[in-house]
Amino acid sequence: MKKAAVIMGSDSDLPVVEKAVSQLKELGIPVEAHVMSAHRTPEESAEFARSARRNGFGVILAAAGKAAHLAGVLAAHTTLPVIGIPIRSGAMNGLDALLSTAQMPAGVPVAAVGIDEAQNAALLAARMLAIEDAALAEKLDERREAMRQAVLRKDADLRKRLGDV
Amino acid sequence: MKKAAVIMGSDSDLPVVEKAVSQLKELGIPVEAHVMSAHRTPEESAEFARSARRNGFGVILAAAGKAAHLAGVLAAHTTLPVIGIPIRSGAMNGLDALLSTAQMPAGVPVAAVGIDEAQNAALLAARMLAIEDAALAEKLDERREAMRQAVLRKDADLRKRLGDV
Amino acid sequence: MKKAAVIMGSDSDLPVVEKAVSQLKELGIPVEAHVMSAHRTPEESAEFARSARRNGFGVILAAAGKAAHLAGVLAAHTTLPVIGIPIRSGAMNGLDALLSTAQMPAGVPVAAVGIDEAQNAALLAARMLAIEDAALAEKLDERREAMRQAVLRKDADLRKRLGDV
Amino acid sequence: MKKAAVIMGSDSDLPVVEKAVSQLKELGIPVEAHVMSAHRTPEESAEFARSARRNGFGVILAAAGKAAHLAGVLAAHTTLPVIGIPIRSGAMNGLDALLSTAQMPAGVPVAAVGIDEAQNAALLAARMLAIEDAALAEKLDERREAMRQAVLRKDADLRKRLGDV
Amino acid sequence: MKKAAVIMGSDSDLPVVEKAVSQLKELGIPVEAHVMSAHRTPEESAEFARSARRNGFGVILAAAGKAAHLAGVLAAHTTLPVIGIPIRSGAMNGLDALLSTAQMPAGVPVAAVGIDEAQNAALLAARMLAIEDAALAEKLDERREAMRQAVLRKDADLRKRLGDV
Amino acid sequence: MKKAAVIMGSDSDLPVVEKAVSQLKELGIPVEAHVMSAHRTPEESAEFARSARRNGFGVILAAAGKAAHLAGVLAAHTTLPVIGIPIRSGAMNGLDALLSTAQMPAGVPVAAVGIDEAQNAALLAARMLAIEDAALAEKLDERREAMRQAVLRKDADLRKRLGDV
Amino acid sequence: MKKAAVIMGSDSDLPVVEKAVSQLKELGIPVEAHVMSAHRTPEESAEFARSARRNGFGVILAAAGKAAHLAGVLAAHTTLPVIGIPIRSGAMNGLDALLSTAQMPAGVPVAAVGIDEAQNAALLAARMLAIEDAALAEKLDERREAMRQAVLRKDADLRKRLGDV
Amino acid sequence: MKKAAVIMGSDSDLPVVEKAVSQLKELGIPVEAHVMSAHRTPEESAEFARSARRNGFGVILAAAGKAAHLAGVLAAHTTLPVIGIPIRSGAMNGLDALLSTAQMPAGVPVAAVGIDEAQNAALLAARMLAIEDAALAEKLDERREAMRQAVLRKDADLRKRLGDV
Repeated sequence: MKKAAVIMGSDSDLPVVEKAVSQLKELGIPVEAHVMSAHRTPEESAEFARSARRNGFGVILAAAGKAAHLAGVLAAHTTLPVIGIPIRSGAMNGLDALLSTAQMPAGVPVAAVGIDEAQNAALLAARMLAIEDAALAEKLDERREAMRQAVLRKDADLRKRLGDV
Repeated sequence: MKKAAVIMGSDSDLPVVEKAVSQLKELGIPVEAHVMSAHRTPEESAEFARSARRNGFGVILAAAGKAAHLAGVLAAHTTLPVIGIPIRSGAMNGLDALLSTAQMPAGVPVAAVGIDEAQNAALLAARMLAIEDAALAEKLDERREAMRQAVLRKDADLRKRLGDV
Repeated sequence: MKKAAVIMGSDSDLPVVEKAVSQLKELGIPVEAHVMSAHRTPEESAEFARSARRNGFGVILAAAGKAAHLAGVLAAHTTLPVIGIPIRSGAMNGLDALLSTAQMPAGVPVAAVGIDEAQNAALLAARMLAIEDAALAEKLDERREAMRQAVLRKDADLRKRLGDV
Repeated sequence: MKKAAVIMGSDSDLPVVEKAVSQLKELGIPVEAHVMSAHRTPEESAEFARSARRNGFGVILAAAGKAAHLAGVLAAHTTLPVIGIPIRSGAMNGLDALLSTAQMPAGVPVAAVGIDEAQNAALLAARMLAIEDAALAEKLDERREAMRQAVLRKDADLRKRLGDV
Repeated sequence: MKKAAVIMGSDSDLPVVEKAVSQLKELGIPVEAHVMSAHRTPEESAEFARSARRNGFGVILAAAGKAAHLAGVLAAHTTLPVIGIPIRSGAMNGLDALLSTAQMPAGVPVAAVGIDEAQNAALLAARMLAIEDAALAEKLDERREAMRQAVLRKDADLRKRLGDV
Repeated sequence: MKKAAVIMGSDSDLPVVEKAVSQLKELGIPVEAHVMSAHRTPEESAEFARSARRNGFGVILAAAGKAAHLAGVLAAHTTLPVIGIPIRSGAMNGLDALLSTAQMPAGVPVAAVGIDEAQNAALLAARMLAIEDAALAEKLDERREAMRQAVLRKDADLRKRLGDV
Repeated sequence: MKKAAVIMGSDSDLPVVEKAVSQLKELGIPVEAHVMSAHRTPEESAEFARSARRNGFGVILAAAGKAAHLAGVLAAHTTLPVIGIPIRSGAMNGLDALLSTAQMPAGVPVAAVGIDEAQNAALLAARMLAIEDAALAEKLDERREAMRQAVLRKDADLRKRLGDV
Repeated sequence: MKKAAVIMGSDSDLPVVEKAVSQLKELGIPVEAHVMSAHRTPEESAEFARSARRNGFGVILAAAGKAAHLAGVLAAHTTLPVIGIPIRSGAMNGLDALLSTAQMPAGVPVAAVGIDEAQNAALLAARMLAIEDAALAEKLDERREAMRQAVLRKDADLRKRLGDV
């Protein structure tokens, strides 16, 4: 199976980003995590992206805050799909990161998920890898059913609890 | 090859969305376009998403404006990757659509591209389909090189033009 | 009397939403509360809305955060009035939820109240049910008068307190 | 049948607001339209709201732009449901009107629809009046089905049109 | 000397608003404070404004949060200058209150100060009352000079402190 | 009677600002208009403000766009009331000017009106000058009554016009 | 004298950016303009920045719209000062570009000017080059004085014009 | 070597601003820090800027919050480059300060850095002073390499740490 790369612009992003790592592992997707910065290690970032496909990666997740250029810079150096995770940090609370991630110029797409939504980034990566992987697709279906059952249980719990509001 | 579905919430979105259709066709990706509405034809939208994988689709693009629920609703009924194209319309100029598309709850991911960026949505879909398709990946590399050459030509043109500013 | 349904997208919304439940009960309006998700239990949500009128509901309140699709999705499956309560959560602090709730496309209306304003949602529901219910209208008038008296008392208190500022 | 009042803060709002009037008439709901201003005719506005229920109104629609106080002021003087239509005008493009309409303090609810969404305001009013009016509810169902059919036709048209993209 | 009225929409605004009261008192301006609500005591608010000039007031300060209609409603019932203090509260952090206060329609002006800037509202009121009051103008000049001296002292302090950074 | 100064940061603001000039003249208030820039003629601006009170001015109106510092800079050099008119210009459409005008630091107040609301600035100035001027206060009352009558006429017109919608 | 580089992300930015080029030339600063894209020609952009100092450049101006990464990417590859010009384009009107330009992570600074303010970028570059260049500093002083005189003339013109308003 | 001035609008900004002071000192750049206010000590601010070049300064850093006029006012009185540091404070969280700093009118440029990014302001100042100072440029290169090494170490650490996620 193709690997997923999880790149974060700073190790301070790890508390958010590790939800992506653990979600990918839970789905059995091999994952390699890195700290790389579009601005502090630009050559390493470019080189990683340029060689990612031949190194066995199928998808890249990139998390960064504020003027979040990381996903865009990686997308410029590869034709693998790149998922951008805008990180909530600083005074703008992640709106800057969302716009810097989503509003890419024509020709170089990035797939933006919601602010701090590392788990959704992992699930989106899994959906991509599952296009041609029926077993992974089935796992995603099971996960979806489990999520549905969890909501149904919470509904049942709520109705009990609110009986005596 | 897996097909791409291009769904738009209203036929008024077509002038923007047809850039996705033509970009997909240019890359040789089979594409099926639909007008479907999360709010006006909710059952048809749900049914389309539920059956999309077994109907040969590999990826779904969904374009909608304002409280853009279409991509999220489709993503709720399938585990295929869904790309949301926020459409610029109404008083909020697409910021509402971007937030409605990107800020999905944990568990149901949507891949948001920039506002009105239908072409990027198509290229992102192609990157997804190219994970396991070396020929398509090569086409994307060629396209990227052509884009690079175009910028280099424009740079050469500019330097000529600005010689007599 | 017609019942009010109070639907929340997640049980984590309960601390806010229970103000709606208790306000409705205080006014003597029968209320049924549920956890249902536009994205995690879409079929159950649709089915609930489709059958709500014949199940004795007169109005539906729906609370959700971020890309808050719940009210819109319910409104798509019923012609009962649907009141959307945008929940403050995540990095955008509820602005995303407000826009996702209010900016509905033409043809499928949602009545948006302020962010986290569950009590107002309940009072709005009561105003709707009171259109044809003189006794409930009278209760609302009494409540309004009590609210007025409370402000007058606070004014009197303030004037005492500020005598020695 | 109870009447609907359609109040606009300025006659310059009429091009937007008349969509509410015509939608209400189309549904057979008696409607009375007024120009009234929370700031320029505050006493008349207050008096209108105070006497609206006994004058046979069941619901009030109020359209205003910028610091849109009209709906809130009317809601302060009645316990009928008040629907606020934020009008797009001036430099803020209606965001100011949306916030001034939706962010009401606890105790005095307004039902906000989207910016300039006069038609949705009318449909929301109809949903309220239809709580106890089976014939009107049926009209709304028919209208919803017609809307659905229109989307299906547009989908069929699109598929023909895109055959030769 | 004309009195200043300080009106707040809720007694929860007092911690912010009392800075206006104490600043006015410090300048020797007679002040009368009230809790009054545009939505909960609309008649009392209107009546207060209508009779304010003949009751000896020269200026009205009005503090409110969220859809802050109070200053506008008062300004509609008097031709005294009304100063609006947008209060920071709720999910929008006061931006809603600023827009609801400042974006008044043509014909009914409100003087908006910054969010939570009760002290500036008091100083603005004093500037208004000082137009025809040379003694108050002189007090304001002295206060301004004291403020200037305080900054100069802080500058001197800083330069000492940073000698050993 | 004290004069009103109307200062604009650029003569391109004149189409908006002349509404202030004509409104002031209509009310019989002597007015002196200037082009002065906080950034391009800072000394002249400071000197104007410093000498304004002794030159017979009672109030200063200042219009500027983008990073609108003009009102704040004038307010720093005088204790006359300064009214800031945020001008809509450039990419931010006046939101930058509103914030630059309203969000003044404690100690130096500016009275902000709505974006481009030059007429309201003039009326606010008149309200200030009328604190001690009963004749001007009466003019403002008459103007308010005329405004009210105009709305009542528009209401009557509307009701005629909508008779045959 | 050190050269100024003016880089634009797309030749469609030229109508805005050429104001920077002409302003620099007017001040006698040698200038070299390029079309280069952070995403479409990332290697060329990086190489340009890496060699800029030894190629005789003293400052780099970079103009880009939407997720404007160009200035940041150049700043990552050089220690010359980089001035970012956020370009107004697309649905967000340049707010995205301003945030993407200004909100750089610690360690890699970009000097942001206002949206579309190419002329200010040029003047800022000139101020930088004039730190050690007395002749250029004098030119800037003359330019500033000319600007001041222009405002004074406009003020004189206005006062003539408004004599008969 | 030319000195850097670090001006803050209030001594409450010092916890943020001292990062600029220490970064400048670390790079061996002589620095002089001041508390000065565009509104509370406008003459002193103007005089400081007017004499800054002849007093041996090469660059001015100016930190202010809310309607942050300080950098703009200083830039109006000098032709030295002025770097504005928008400070996060008050209800708008620094967005007001960013716009007040960046959106300067044509002719008077300010170099804005990110909200609270005092360190970047210092590094930007150093880049300006290094245009003609090879030794300082070399220091900046070494610092950049150290920053790169730090990221590489963090990447190595992360890969160890995630071995047992």
